[in-house]
Amino acid sequence: QPALRKALEKNFIHQSMSIIVEDAIKKATDVREKVCEWRSPEQLKELLDLELRDGAESESEILQRFKDAIRYSVKTTHPRFFNQLYAGMDPYSMVASFIIEALKPSLYTYEVAPVFTLVEEAVLKKMMELIGWKDGGDGIFNAGGSMSNMYAVNLARYRCCPDIKENGLSAAPHLVMFTSQECHYSISKAAALLGIATRTLLSGAVPFMVNATAGTTVLGAFDPIDEIADICEKHNLWLHVDACWGGAALVSSKHKHLLKGIHRADSVAWNPHKMLMACLQCSAFMVRDKTSLLQRCHSARASYLFQQDKFYDVSYDTGDKSVQCSRKPDAFKIWLMWKALGSRELEQRVDRALAMARYLAQEIKQREGFRLLMEPEYANICFWYIPPSLRNLPDGPELWGKLHKVAPVIKERMMKKGSMMVGYQPHGEKANFFRMIIISPQVSRQDMDFVLDEIHNLGKDL
Amino acid sequence: QPALRKALEKNFIHQSMSIIVEDAIKKATDVREKVCEWRSPEQLKELLDLELRDGAESESEILQRFKDAIRYSVKTTHPRFFNQLYAGMDPYSMVASFIIEALKPSLYTYEVAPVFTLVEEAVLKKMMELIGWKDGGDGIFNAGGSMSNMYAVNLARYRCCPDIKENGLSAAPHLVMFTSQECHYSISKAAALLGIATRTLLSGAVPFMVNATAGTTVLGAFDPIDEIADICEKHNLWLHVDACWGGAALVSSKHKHLLKGIHRADSVAWNPHKMLMACLQCSAFMVRDKTSLLQRCHSARASYLFQQDKFYDVSYDTGDKSVQCSRKPDAFKIWLMWKALGSRELEQRVDRALAMARYLAQEIKQREGFRLLMEPEYANICFWYIPPSLRNLPDGPELWGKLHKVAPVIKERMMKKGSMMVGYQPHGEKANFFRMIIISPQVSRQDMDFVLDEIHNLGKDL
Repeated sequence: QPALRKALEKNFIHQSMSIIVEDAIKKATDVREKVCEWRSPEQLKELLDLELRDGAESESEILQRFKDAIRYSVKTTHPRFFNQLYAGMDPYSMVASFIIEALKPSLYTYEVAPVFTLVEEAVLKKMMELIGWKDGGDGIFNAGGSMSNMYAVNLARYRCCPDIKENGLSAAPHLVMFTSQECHYSISKAAALLGIATRTLLSGAVPFMVNATAGTTVLGAFDPIDEIADICEKHNLWLHVDACWGGAALVSSKHKHLLKGIHRADSVAWNPHKMLMACLQCSAFMVRDKTSLLQRCHSARASYLFQQDKFYDVSYDTGDKSVQCSRKPDAFKIWLMWKALGSRELEQRVDRALAMARYLAQEIKQREGFRLLMEPEYANICFWYIPPSLRNLPDGPELWGKLHKVAPVIKERMMKKGSMMVGYQPHGEKANFFRMIIISPQVSRQDMDFVLDEIHNLGKDL
Repeated sequence: QPALRKALEKNFIHQSMSIIVEDAIKKATDVREKVCEWRSPEQLKELLDLELRDGAESESEILQRFKDAIRYSVKTTHPRFFNQLYAGMDPYSMVASFIIEALKPSLYTYEVAPVFTLVEEAVLKKMMELIGWKDGGDGIFNAGGSMSNMYAVNLARYRCCPDIKENGLSAAPHLVMFTSQECHYSISKAAALLGIATRTLLSGAVPFMVNATAGTTVLGAFDPIDEIADICEKHNLWLHVDACWGGAALVSSKHKHLLKGIHRADSVAWNPHKMLMACLQCSAFMVRDKTSLLQRCHSARASYLFQQDKFYDVSYDTGDKSVQCSRKPDAFKIWLMWKALGSRELEQRVDRALAMARYLAQEIKQREGFRLLMEPEYANICFWYIPPSLRNLPDGPELWGKLHKVAPVIKERMMKKGSMMVGYQPHGEKANFFRMIIISPQVSRQDMDFVLDEIHNLGKDL
């Protein structure tokens, strides 16, 4: 491997790693640095020289490209990044990711990924224990929560009408699933992809599943799983719990009540890359079934991978449970971190984040010009900032129409300044509001105060 | 971020990186080292102590866990790993992967991943140029070739019957697609998932797409794209080319004729993580359509991500083209490598690999006890090894019955010895044979000779 040998000899890898440690780790997580260095697409294209050409670039040019790519990237690991349902950097998980990238494993057969196959099994076992499935179950990690939710829909459909796999939906009854308005958009994407329909057509339809959300994306709300499970049991409906975001509460004795009844679910999606801070992606999909439903539903029995005459127990070849072929060993990113921290530290992180969320909600209620959308159930704090010029307007369409335009301008200003990143969105009839996401363990009360002060500073003239 | 600060202060990250360079990069790619250190699942579970507990482990224990994980993992980057459609290690791509892991970007909106959004656009542009789409097109990178093929089926269906997205398949005609027996199993997985049926039901069915394979998984064979395109044009069928494996030939003036006619495809899947050696995953899906078909087919317009009142051009928010939500910026892994090597070096790598494949085929034809299954079209060399004890048997069921059991035993022995990894499989009526995959630029004639010598050494007593 001449390129690799040359890179090792010429110290290229060592130099690259120094840049990564300095710029992409230390500087990126330093609160005194900017969270982003905003450039418009047009400006950035000029700065980066993206075109791919016939000739090679020198190693020093390549090192400069690393620096530029890091410089103009958003620092999602920065303490002032509150924009998505993930944030921060766990060093153990990061190093686990590096190992994965260097070893290039793919999880389809035990023979090419022995360690990672067993690691995945161990992590799923632990997560299913926390869910409360005393007899275990089955599962796989996959490329994101949207995929997990899609798997749930497919499994539920397969249990209901196994013939669909071979015969398709044209001959099947019209199937319908139930979910709340607040559910993640991947449920609707799954319905479209699987040919189930995204529009409700109730007449003559056969219900086959209910999706309950544990920690909704915008509001952080929890569906009442126990009550939904009662209905599902009565009508023999598959119960899927989308706990991608809220699942982390299961590690906390104080907060796990939010997911009361989750052990009654047929399937659960839970992303340790969110609140638990594993590196991206780290998304588990778990099924209570122990009759190889996952395998039967998805298998295609490729003879070049899943030979039955191997010299080891081929039940460790997990690839045919997936709709992917190559699959990354994402469980390793949470396994190593869990080993390093232990369940107790994970619990403290979650408790700390949720305590901080309560603190922020209290502050918002006390500060002039801030208005809480609802008491937080979890780590999403949704609120409006009302600039002084609007504070005397009566509650009505004029106020809300004007408020709707406030958050986008403050967002633009915070990004151009690089001081922090907080998301905003409208929601149903509600005008644009901010959504702060508090991820353990990186934030302090000072950070919470900073966010509110900064929003006021950026928006007080509006 | 206390854990990160502590890890930086205590030199933990530096120590981890040293282990990665020594064990996961240098040693893993050293031909004098073993390609794998075989342990059965039961043995490995004991060695690794996988259970997750309440308490934390020390940093030295964690560093030992890294070493163990690397030690017992298969070295897919080792020069003697010929088991899958990927191999080797490109240092530029690896470092690009590390940067991605450290920065934790997610590709849904320009605001959180500005650099990687533009990099993806630039790489897709270059790949579409090589396909020959003079006016460009559209595309995204996603979590693997199976996903790309699934996207193709969904887009083809959407173009044929856009109502299915809202109304589902129950009201639609029975749809049917055409593909060869030799196609990748993801086509069949996609048909099952999308509710199209995996069993052929021709009566009254409406054809909507043809899948052509450019580089089949087992034999490395190429469907005649031009001839298939004629038929697709005549009958208005969507033409998808699964060039996940064979797409790399497009960078070579000498070999691109293998994909003659690919510019007539409606969609193409091409994985630079295979022959071009980008790190895993690096899988592009491209569509010739320029009317936002990808977006219209997959969009769910989540208001918390894809706000229309942002301060920048929201056509750079590419997330709604995908069925995923979070999506890794995999294009960066090929972009950086392409910058460092240039198209010319990529071309030489491909030419070199295919020349080596020819050499191996010639050797197999000349050596006693080896039998080539077919002349290679690409980098898959399929052959039987016939141990001396079977060489005098006449060609017939007895010989093939006995030969069928030879490859699995040799495979077991090579893995337990750790000398190399080569895949085997049956294929249709054909008894188990070896499939060597030659990936540029890591192999020499000596390596090819070694493989044949070693197979003979491991199997001559059978």
